[in-house]
Amino acid sequence: MSAYKIGIDIGGTNVKAGVVGNDGKILAKTSIETGVGRPHTEIIRGVAEAARKTARDAGIAWEQISGVGAGMPGIINSAAGEVVYSCNFAWKNVPLGAELSKLLQKSVKVENDANAAGYGEYLFGAAHKYKNSVFFTLGTGVGAGIVLDGGIFSGFKSAGAELGHMVIVVGGEPCNCGRRGCFEAYASATGLVRICSETAVKYPGSLLAALVAERRAAGKDAGGKTAFTAAAAGDKAGTEAVNAYIEYLSEGIANIVNAFRPEAVIIGGGVSAQGETLLAPLRVKCYEKAYGGVEYAPFDILLAELGNDAGLLGAAFL
Amino acid sequence: MSAYKIGIDIGGTNVKAGVVGNDGKILAKTSIETGVGRPHTEIIRGVAEAARKTARDAGIAWEQISGVGAGMPGIINSAAGEVVYSCNFAWKNVPLGAELSKLLQKSVKVENDANAAGYGEYLFGAAHKYKNSVFFTLGTGVGAGIVLDGGIFSGFKSAGAELGHMVIVVGGEPCNCGRRGCFEAYASATGLVRICSETAVKYPGSLLAALVAERRAAGKDAGGKTAFTAAAAGDKAGTEAVNAYIEYLSEGIANIVNAFRPEAVIIGGGVSAQGETLLAPLRVKCYEKAYGGVEYAPFDILLAELGNDAGLLGAAFL
Repeated sequence: MSAYKIGIDIGGTNVKAGVVGNDGKILAKTSIETGVGRPHTEIIRGVAEAARKTARDAGIAWEQISGVGAGMPGIINSAAGEVVYSCNFAWKNVPLGAELSKLLQKSVKVENDANAAGYGEYLFGAAHKYKNSVFFTLGTGVGAGIVLDGGIFSGFKSAGAELGHMVIVVGGEPCNCGRRGCFEAYASATGLVRICSETAVKYPGSLLAALVAERRAAGKDAGGKTAFTAAAAGDKAGTEAVNAYIEYLSEGIANIVNAFRPEAVIIGGGVSAQGETLLAPLRVKCYEKAYGGVEYAPFDILLAELGNDAGLLGAAFL
Repeated sequence: MSAYKIGIDIGGTNVKAGVVGNDGKILAKTSIETGVGRPHTEIIRGVAEAARKTARDAGIAWEQISGVGAGMPGIINSAAGEVVYSCNFAWKNVPLGAELSKLLQKSVKVENDANAAGYGEYLFGAAHKYKNSVFFTLGTGVGAGIVLDGGIFSGFKSAGAELGHMVIVVGGEPCNCGRRGCFEAYASATGLVRICSETAVKYPGSLLAALVAERRAAGKDAGGKTAFTAAAAGDKAGTEAVNAYIEYLSEGIANIVNAFRPEAVIIGGGVSAQGETLLAPLRVKCYEKAYGGVEYAPFDILLAELGNDAGLLGAAFL
């Protein structure tokens, strides 16, 4: 009986590995520090140990594991199981799949982490009703995973689906990718923090400005939640910052809807903690901007359901 | 023997119908006026007559026609053969496939015209070497056709692939779709004409300004070719206008490359008449902007090869 899989989410800070049943139930989870900076062979050995440990913790014999999947940030050649390039890890052409497979004696599939998370949400989360969906994670950056006809879509040699790196403001804010005005530079938590700071400067007497100053005094940045807190208290500056953020977010999402026309857009990541405060106005704006309206080919905009487990779950079923 | 197909390109001005062999060779072509404004049944009757006439002109018996395909502008439910909405035609929910099929006694497929043209370039034109391509036609608007894994991709209920309607300048130039700053508003021939006018105003003593004034005196707009003519003569204003246009064009194309990562981008439509004058600098800019560079997953940027026949050819093989 091989009713179990192992999913691994290799992040810049932690590696999470979990044993997953065919129903998507996680039987055990292990988290270790990634230890970025060490030689990749050492990091991969750690990943393999985490995978074996989680199987032991779950009480599952190794023979019962039918396959292993891992997601990590970067350009991943999923067909070859190779990490072509990962900026955070400073990896180039690392045969992650082959090395893990040797260590684990199992077939190992590899994917970009956001693709894996989008696939996880399709298999077991918010997108499970839809054959075509786009998942966004709004965190430090904007990650995206596209599911078309029930499978991950990532373009030629998996080099596409980089939806955070589509320019929405030509000549706008600088992006880590080298371009200016990328969707990520506005719709990420980092973008939200910048919008907060700028709006606080514009309204020096506002609650928003006071909250930002308070955070600054504590040695922190303006904060992603600050604008939402101020807006909830009726502060005009807070409301303006929230509206500006949602406006940019809606422009990028409407763009991607006009290109891919999915049946559902799933929003995850830190900023999605705002729930319907974020999603209700976002829906209105996106529905206005969708080409040809929404009557004929409606799409839902929903909160992600799997949180940090999305990547692990998607990876397990690659 | 059913070795022939009929492809039809239903445009706002003319309807073109052609008999096509399985090798993509056009045996005969007929063009009639569309007569937009008449009841749709009359227009469709005209389309059917054009189809029958082109078969007669080619000397092909009607029994030898194995199928008919038609492309036209608008949101087309290709699965249902229905024109959901076509702005130019003022059609809503017109069962084009069923009505044509009744008149022609053949199976009839229907597609959006830009999708059909992109498919035509894939089957018999510039994109024939690539399983994944994106075709742009830079004319009055920006049309786009996406081919993924050898098939037309147009999203849920064919409501996607509207790549002209992706905002690249939030709050920018108004677009016919109701949004501001769409790719189409900058990269279409119409966008180029506007850039010409604006640059001419900026440089009153330039050759560009003189050429624009000359066209205006003749009752014409600034013209899509004017900037290229002035630039070729070494005019600084002309060069600036051309560069500005290509910059916007490259931003939109790089966006779409980052999303779909095709193996080839095919450029057609009126503006593509500039050939390598347009494409050489466009390649440089797009390759700079492609996420993760172009070494790992290279893509070509090529001129369309089929001109006005692309739509007809793609439609024939739907």
